Amino acid sequence: MPAHATPAPSASPVTVLGLGLMGYALADALLTAGHQVTVWNRTPAKADPLVARGATLAPSVREAIESSPLTISCVLDYDTQHALLTPAAGALHGRTLVSLTNGTPAQARETEAWALALGATYLDGGIMAVPHQIDTPEAFLFYSGAQDPFDQHHPTLSVLGTPHHLSTDVGVAALYDLALLSAMDMMFAGFFHATAVATSHKGTSATDFAPHLVAWLTSMLSMVPLMAADIDSPAAPAYAQSLDLVAAAAQNMADAAREAGVLPDHFDRSVTALRQRIASGETEYTAASAVSQLRVPARG
Amino acid sequence: MPAHATPAPSASPVTVLGLGLMGYALADALLTAGHQVTVWNRTPAKADPLVARGATLAPSVREAIESSPLTISCVLDYDTQHALLTPAAGALHGRTLVSLTNGTPAQARETEAWALALGATYLDGGIMAVPHQIDTPEAFLFYSGAQDPFDQHHPTLSVLGTPHHLSTDVGVAALYDLALLSAMDMMFAGFFHATAVATSHKGTSATDFAPHLVAWLTSMLSMVPLMAADIDSPAAPAYAQSLDLVAAAAQNMADAAREAGVLPDHFDRSVTALRQRIASGETEYTAASAVSQLRVPARG
Repeated sequence: MPAHATPAPSASPVTVLGLGLMGYALADALLTAGHQVTVWNRTPAKADPLVARGATLAPSVREAIESSPLTISCVLDYDTQHALLTPAAGALHGRTLVSLTNGTPAQARETEAWALALGATYLDGGIMAVPHQIDTPEAFLFYSGAQDPFDQHHPTLSVLGTPHHLSTDVGVAALYDLALLSAMDMMFAGFFHATAVATSHKGTSATDFAPHLVAWLTSMLSMVPLMAADIDSPAAPAYAQSLDLVAAAAQNMADAAREAGVLPDHFDRSVTALRQRIASGETEYTAASAVSQLRVPARG
Repeated sequence: MPAHATPAPSASPVTVLGLGLMGYALADALLTAGHQVTVWNRTPAKADPLVARGATLAPSVREAIESSPLTISCVLDYDTQHALLTPAAGALHGRTLVSLTNGTPAQARETEAWALALGATYLDGGIMAVPHQIDTPEAFLFYSGAQDPFDQHHPTLSVLGTPHHLSTDVGVAALYDLALLSAMDMMFAGFFHATAVATSHKGTSATDFAPHLVAWLTSMLSMVPLMAADIDSPAAPAYAQSLDLVAAAAQNMADAAREAGVLPDHFDRSVTALRQRIASGETEYTAASAVSQLRVPARG
């Protein structure tokens, strides 16, 4: 063990499969926390800096799994993961597999059934962080599946970021993960749109505008818990607006985009949808009504 | 002056036109800060609690304007504002008019020209706060137009929230305001979508899910300044992803929505647009390319 790693007597051995940017960051954080880390990667040379810091490079997936009671898999996708694990399946008996590979709830359920049949315990996880955030206060991870392996490996999992065990239903971590990625994608789409509008003014750069956007969106995120309460209890919403006013605001945003030379499509669609609701006799815009519009049966 | 208001010797008289939720909050904050506040509202009774705290209710817009060197207008829209101010226009000579009414850059330019012709000075503003945030650290306001009235009235304007003078081009405050409202609208659309997806799991309420969403979006906002730098300097982006991977992620989000019974339209459109870029020979997804796709000439 190198002199700069602080050994923690209780830190248990852990194996990491896959040393992409994220897998590398996970192994690196575990090493820093004093764990005995075994790694495997398709291209072994990627492990060199970790080996120099005390990690062990396993020559096969089977030997990697056999080195630790806990194996964390972080590879490209579930098909890749299944192909890697199948030849080494026997080694999983009596061990815990944690998949931090990106996938869907259905893939999590299939993998859990496969692992349980092998006599392994299984947790499915989602990493809510970019690689450079691993092992910082911003990082958090969702887990779902059996409670026991989560409790048993909690100290190890805590090294990566704050662990949240969501449900014994193994698909929930992937569901939340994809839901949050969708919200991020739409927030960034809003950032790109707003930047295109603001930089239509020749004196404005994206860098000038960004701090205002961050301050504003941070401030508006404070409304989310109150709107969530309205979604859960739609009978007496704390925030209700007139649909007429919301449609007028959406029209203003569409017009402002058009005048700025920016595609107004998102806001044009909003105006159309809001006017259809008004035409059908609705008068009130609430968070609950916005969510219910998104559910498939709402489509006429 | 009531005993609980702390008089500031340098606090200059100020007039507020319009006592909707926002105008009321502005007048209330100015009173609290010790200003001599004159108000006018179409329905005078709304001023009663402010008058009880020391405000003066003016019987007409003209008399309201004549009571102070600075008049802040916060009414429904620019048409309403113009109709109110026209009969009192003579009173604006030698005074400053600040419009915090919601409008477009074009409306700001028209109003500035009208005010300058009357011998008034003019600032156009945008309030980046909801009413209950006025006079809190979260609140900030954009102003554009002449520098002199901004500097002269800076202490008064600072009472409402942090004032940012953006440009002597009077349209810029409205441009930034509408850009940020657009970004908020799209962020909330993402929140509604993610909530619809997550609550497809029967054990999950919107209230359960909201803190995770706030933590994740707050964390991801830290990427905005770096992406803004990439937008300004697209030659060597810090963040570039393969278009193939971004299209695959968008497809996953569409599939996850569909499986959760949520309309996947936003992500279906993303997949189509990303595949068109791939088919045309593009390979890289960057923030700069995302913004340039939104500019109207990008449409083929």
